[in-house]
Amino acid sequence: MEIEAKRWGFRGKQELNAASASTVRGYLNQIIARINKDNSSSVIRLGHGDPSHFPSFKTTPAAEDAIVDALRSAKHNCYAPSAGVLPARRAIADYLNRDLPCKLSPDDVYLTSGCNQAIEVAARNVLSRPGANILLPRPGFPYYESCSAYNHLEVRHYDLLPEKGWEVDLDAVETIADENTVALVIINPGNPCGNVFSYEQLHKMLISIFLLNLRLQRQQESLGFCTRYVPMRVLGSTVPVLTLGSISKRWIVPGWRLGWIVTSDPNSILKKSGVIDSIAEFLNVSSDPATFIQAAIPQILENTKEDFFSKIISTLRKCADICYNRIEEIPSLTCPKKPEGSMSVMVKLNLSMLEDINDDMDFCLKLAEEESVVVLPGMAMGLKNWLRITFAIEPSLLQEGLGRIKGFCQRHAKKQ
Amino acid sequence: MEIEAKRWGFRGKQELNAASASTVRGYLNQIIARINKDNSSSVIRLGHGDPSHFPSFKTTPAAEDAIVDALRSAKHNCYAPSAGVLPARRAIADYLNRDLPCKLSPDDVYLTSGCNQAIEVAARNVLSRPGANILLPRPGFPYYESCSAYNHLEVRHYDLLPEKGWEVDLDAVETIADENTVALVIINPGNPCGNVFSYEQLHKMLISIFLLNLRLQRQQESLGFCTRYVPMRVLGSTVPVLTLGSISKRWIVPGWRLGWIVTSDPNSILKKSGVIDSIAEFLNVSSDPATFIQAAIPQILENTKEDFFSKIISTLRKCADICYNRIEEIPSLTCPKKPEGSMSVMVKLNLSMLEDINDDMDFCLKLAEEESVVVLPGMAMGLKNWLRITFAIEPSLLQEGLGRIKGFCQRHAKKQ
Repeated sequence: MEIEAKRWGFRGKQELNAASASTVRGYLNQIIARINKDNSSSVIRLGHGDPSHFPSFKTTPAAEDAIVDALRSAKHNCYAPSAGVLPARRAIADYLNRDLPCKLSPDDVYLTSGCNQAIEVAARNVLSRPGANILLPRPGFPYYESCSAYNHLEVRHYDLLPEKGWEVDLDAVETIADENTVALVIINPGNPCGNVFSYEQLHKMLISIFLLNLRLQRQQESLGFCTRYVPMRVLGSTVPVLTLGSISKRWIVPGWRLGWIVTSDPNSILKKSGVIDSIAEFLNVSSDPATFIQAAIPQILENTKEDFFSKIISTLRKCADICYNRIEEIPSLTCPKKPEGSMSVMVKLNLSMLEDINDDMDFCLKLAEEESVVVLPGMAMGLKNWLRITFAIEPSLLQEGLGRIKGFCQRHAKKQ
Repeated sequence: MEIEAKRWGFRGKQELNAASASTVRGYLNQIIARINKDNSSSVIRLGHGDPSHFPSFKTTPAAEDAIVDALRSAKHNCYAPSAGVLPARRAIADYLNRDLPCKLSPDDVYLTSGCNQAIEVAARNVLSRPGANILLPRPGFPYYESCSAYNHLEVRHYDLLPEKGWEVDLDAVETIADENTVALVIINPGNPCGNVFSYEQLHKMLISIFLLNLRLQRQQESLGFCTRYVPMRVLGSTVPVLTLGSISKRWIVPGWRLGWIVTSDPNSILKKSGVIDSIAEFLNVSSDPATFIQAAIPQILENTKEDFFSKIISTLRKCADICYNRIEEIPSLTCPKKPEGSMSVMVKLNLSMLEDINDDMDFCLKLAEEESVVVLPGMAMGLKNWLRITFAIEPSLLQEGLGRIKGFCQRHAKKQ
């Protein structure tokens, strides 16, 4: 007996499509589907920020050992408290306090299942209310858009200015912010632009935020390899800051799903307005990171040697140099700023110099088909006719991938 | 400078409170807070279903070894595909297919961060639409209520009948179901009642569901220790079934956060109405279980010896016997049915035989204060003036805890 689907009144999938089509995964799936399987060359993925497969980006044995110790102790097979196990919260607070004037306590730290769940906590609970809007950078990290759309937060974009090394367009912020703006999101070091905001830039932003009476500021931390990185919460004495972070990038273990949301609330704004309680209570009804991974955090933070980080950072710097220099060789591509952090860079596509390429997505689809190289179209980050190129892969592969991109651009160059 | 909290227009916490106060964690926190720290006796927790701390419930080394192998391979530090890694999905499909006529494929299996996230996926995406309602058992597992409330699904309860060994009150189901009912939830083996539905009971339910034209049926699997356990999907040839499960109970590792949602859709109802796509796309924008834990699943399922399960089940049966027999000794408590599965049992409180006890919550608070024993009030499961007693703890501790409950009840017994 055939039962007609239309009789079954499930929620339609349109709403979900809108939220998930714009994710990096959504774009990547379309692009990867175009790779020609008969092509003899191996696939080179410059489209996603996960270098954990590559020998140069292998995590430290100290981190693995910490996980094994926590697991073998058989003390951490149990459920965890909803905010996370206390020793891990304490270790993360201490870790973030290093060399800084701010003093976080373990109570300020909530463990989440990767940084993505931290974004979800903020978007879904703390900020979502009828009519609220959120200010996101463009280009940015599309998971913010998905999460905001899914939670009925109106998204307003402020631009990062390529001609000014991806500084924030503060005039734009003033124009789009209003009394319903609940947060300004800052991603520092910049994902996808690879920039690192200076102390002066952050200070100017802070003054703007204060003058605009914006309610909250969120910062997502990724991995910087220049020395001027300053966490926003150091500056925030009057503006509450939520810092979102994880061990994913710094330890090159995105699959371990261990992140955090940290509250900096010097004037008890978050506490008095119920935000702190809301975070705690949302975590009561949502899923946690695995308990033994939480339990391993103190040992991971304590036992990881500085030379692991310096080796990774030096590899990233080398990759950034390769990427910047090879792109300079390609007339139809422009990279406005050499990356100083993160794992990717934004590259401008000069379509007028290319034949048979309609836009950035068309470029990516044809590149995948002809060269088995995957890069992300800028439209995934809200910047049409740009590309996001991830340089955090094995340097030899990066060279090869950029060589293929060069060949592709030469083949598609407009005849003079 | 003091900034007034009321100027900051965050979403209030009332809505969240409503969703999370009714969780087991919420009740437990209140009860545990009443334990008298000056009391010399150790705390005995009969309130939550997590026996992983106890020697008799230690997980098998085979499962730990599988995790260590996956971690040490360094192949699984990466992000996972949103539905989970394929070998794990295939292993779970094969595992659930054992000895059954239904044939699940890996595509029917979606990995989730514990069973809780599986519940969230179902409540938030598949079923939530304006005006929809969901039928939940009473007593039940309060996370369903929290999740439904949070996702604006109207909850309607059907009773489980203690006088009939916790059979479903099918007349009630017929009364409360209507054209906006999107699912009937069945928890088998019963949590918190410890019953296991017979084939005949399930078949009767199925006929009802079919006649009522209910849209979906969800079943949460826990651990049964009688032989008659039958998964609902075996019966369902016309009604789509979502089976929610995890390794938490069977391997005694709730902290590993590895669960699944499995679709049984013989007539393609779920596919045609977009539910399958919705699940996949929600998982695209939500957090995953740790990749190396996913990757360990095939080895965990393959290498766990049958004698591990039989030892755990024999311990549980012994604990159920202790619990049932000791409660029989207490006049003011009644246990309508000896448990056949799960890790807890519902016990009726005869308030007329007790002095100074107002209700089940009052009983639990005073018990915690006077005897350092934690049990859950029935109101947490929608059954006022009952208790939920978890028997899955070390047998010697269970004896001691029930002895203290007996002493408490004797001390508070009404004088004849």
